Amino acid sequence: MENFVFHNPCRVIFGKGMIGRIGSEIKGLGHHKILLLAGQGSIRKNGVYQQAAKSLRSAGIKWAEVWGVRANPVLSKVEEAVKVAREQKVSAILAIGGGSVIDSAKSAAAGFYLSEIWDAFEGVTEIKRALPLFTILTLSATASEMNQWAVLSKPDEKKKWAIGAEVLIPKVTVIDPSVQISLPWKQTVNGAIDAISHIMENYFVGTDQEVSMGICESLIRTIIEMTDLLQTQPRDYSARANLVWAATMAHNGISAVALKGGDWSAHKIEHGISALHPEIAHGTGLAIVFPAWIKYMERYNRKTFQRWAQVIWSAHSADSAVGKMKTKYSKWGAPVSLTEIGISETEIPAIAENAYRMKPIGVIKKLSLKDIKAILNLAS
Amino acid sequence: MENFVFHNPCRVIFGKGMIGRIGSEIKGLGHHKILLLAGQGSIRKNGVYQQAAKSLRSAGIKWAEVWGVRANPVLSKVEEAVKVAREQKVSAILAIGGGSVIDSAKSAAAGFYLSEIWDAFEGVTEIKRALPLFTILTLSATASEMNQWAVLSKPDEKKKWAIGAEVLIPKVTVIDPSVQISLPWKQTVNGAIDAISHIMENYFVGTDQEVSMGICESLIRTIIEMTDLLQTQPRDYSARANLVWAATMAHNGISAVALKGGDWSAHKIEHGISALHPEIAHGTGLAIVFPAWIKYMERYNRKTFQRWAQVIWSAHSADSAVGKMKTKYSKWGAPVSLTEIGISETEIPAIAENAYRMKPIGVIKKLSLKDIKAILNLAS
Repeated sequence: MENFVFHNPCRVIFGKGMIGRIGSEIKGLGHHKILLLAGQGSIRKNGVYQQAAKSLRSAGIKWAEVWGVRANPVLSKVEEAVKVAREQKVSAILAIGGGSVIDSAKSAAAGFYLSEIWDAFEGVTEIKRALPLFTILTLSATASEMNQWAVLSKPDEKKKWAIGAEVLIPKVTVIDPSVQISLPWKQTVNGAIDAISHIMENYFVGTDQEVSMGICESLIRTIIEMTDLLQTQPRDYSARANLVWAATMAHNGISAVALKGGDWSAHKIEHGISALHPEIAHGTGLAIVFPAWIKYMERYNRKTFQRWAQVIWSAHSADSAVGKMKTKYSKWGAPVSLTEIGISETEIPAIAENAYRMKPIGVIKKLSLKDIKAILNLAS
Repeated sequence: MENFVFHNPCRVIFGKGMIGRIGSEIKGLGHHKILLLAGQGSIRKNGVYQQAAKSLRSAGIKWAEVWGVRANPVLSKVEEAVKVAREQKVSAILAIGGGSVIDSAKSAAAGFYLSEIWDAFEGVTEIKRALPLFTILTLSATASEMNQWAVLSKPDEKKKWAIGAEVLIPKVTVIDPSVQISLPWKQTVNGAIDAISHIMENYFVGTDQEVSMGICESLIRTIIEMTDLLQTQPRDYSARANLVWAATMAHNGISAVALKGGDWSAHKIEHGISALHPEIAHGTGLAIVFPAWIKYMERYNRKTFQRWAQVIWSAHSADSAVGKMKTKYSKWGAPVSLTEIGISETEIPAIAENAYRMKPIGVIKKLSLKDIKAILNLAS
């Protein structure tokens, strides 16, 4: 078995009514002035902003605000956040939102100490320091609230790339699942599919690390069960809380132990799509790419794909399991082909080339440009 | 679903050849002089001590040594360690050993700042500070290497009691499964049964926290599978590494999230036995107590016991599952009745009364002295 280092010092405060704790947590770590980073304003409508502001005020914490992070977050907003953080001399960042906001906050936290944060995404600068990060999660999908990863887009170059560093793991994350009860169904589904995809990226590498393999399977089953439940009972708190915690566990490192760091080629191919089509949510792209990716990859790690087919889908072949998976995703309302989202076969070469810039791509098999095109063709 | 806080900042360095990292890890956290705490000397025979000493020397770390921690560790050895730590002005403790050594190190780390460490076990003093703790694990069972708990005995009062505090979580834990390959089979089995028992203490409480419930089941299955494997192939590194990591995961908090803190009454009853019979290993005691405990408790949380019977043992009733569990434990060579270890029915009242001093006992059901006697009778 592969050697590994596991370290996740993030403190998770989970449950109904927990947002009010954020102020004392931030104060407890010695901060007096912070940057609050947020999205398009939904946190004002659902009251999360008001709860957080009240908690910060009671703890005597001052803050500056930057709003406007969008889905598929972009570099320019991060640069704005860094500028404000420097001008206002903050000592920490509080991200309130989903993965887009948290990823932007991570980028800004590292960017605070760098002349050009994008250099870190290009791999020419190493992230050694970052402002301490706090988060209040409002949309479960990326697990960014409890991991070291961030994804950002640079639209002028059609790049959607990632960074990772231990200093980017949030110090404290508050997760109140009840604030997600009012989410549109589509966002719940995108989050669930993103979370399942994170697990599968690790799982399909398939090693003798049975503890991780078993936990991966258990998490996938729980996410499917809870998403099914929420489709018929959208206000069920218990199902929501399970989905939310499973999504965090899907990509906080625990279920990925000794799985070679995962494969992540399906994610890179999806980033190739949503970098060109920022209107497409990441989870939507994954619902389309992943079944095709499995079909294509099955021959390269038959044992693990067979195991997945049997354990998760009670199917006798990966092919039949992919069918069941697509049926499930469709039932949830997710598209499972490029055609469904208006991307025609003629666009495939451009998407494939865009994804291929992130090479090396793939661990189970190192993918060539031709492989990526073939996968996209299966997805069309 | 229950609210929860999850925080486990322990850094785990896992795998073959990793012991040599301990020096730089300790130095990295700013320590120059430490106390090394160890057991009866087996770490000299298997070379773990030599690897650790070499690593400490290369990192320029000085140390004092206290040897002689025994199974069912006692207060007097902890007091000796505290005395040496103070005299030598160390700033951290390195425990090299299994749960007994690590628990003693935790007690000493807290005791360094207290006038009487036993007061914390009695619950009359709170543990707020402790010397930073590092561990090199040589026997997997308690998960003490990655949690906040410690158990200690005070033989003159026949007490075997526990403490827990976040400051007791080790900063860094090195786990090299290969050093456990030479363990006597009996110790491997005791460790496996202890780990399974930790999971069951949480699991049988049974809540709607499906993420945790599923992970518990997965871990139990993995431990059984790997122990079976090791019985026929004792030198299989992969099976050993899986058992070792599963035992850590069994009680590091992850699989216990939102399970009401667990029940722990079977553990308390076992402590009642081994406090009176220090020659009985904790895992041995648990192999005897747990099947009886399940038989007795099943009526108080039928749904969860039924689920366990089905998922773990493919059995249709808890009673039949207990039978299969006892057969499995016996096959591993563990005793499953008090008679087998020479404890007769006449001793039961004394054991029950000794356990009952740890009241309140039980979460699924608050156990009376009569309940405890009944469970011990089922175990006899």
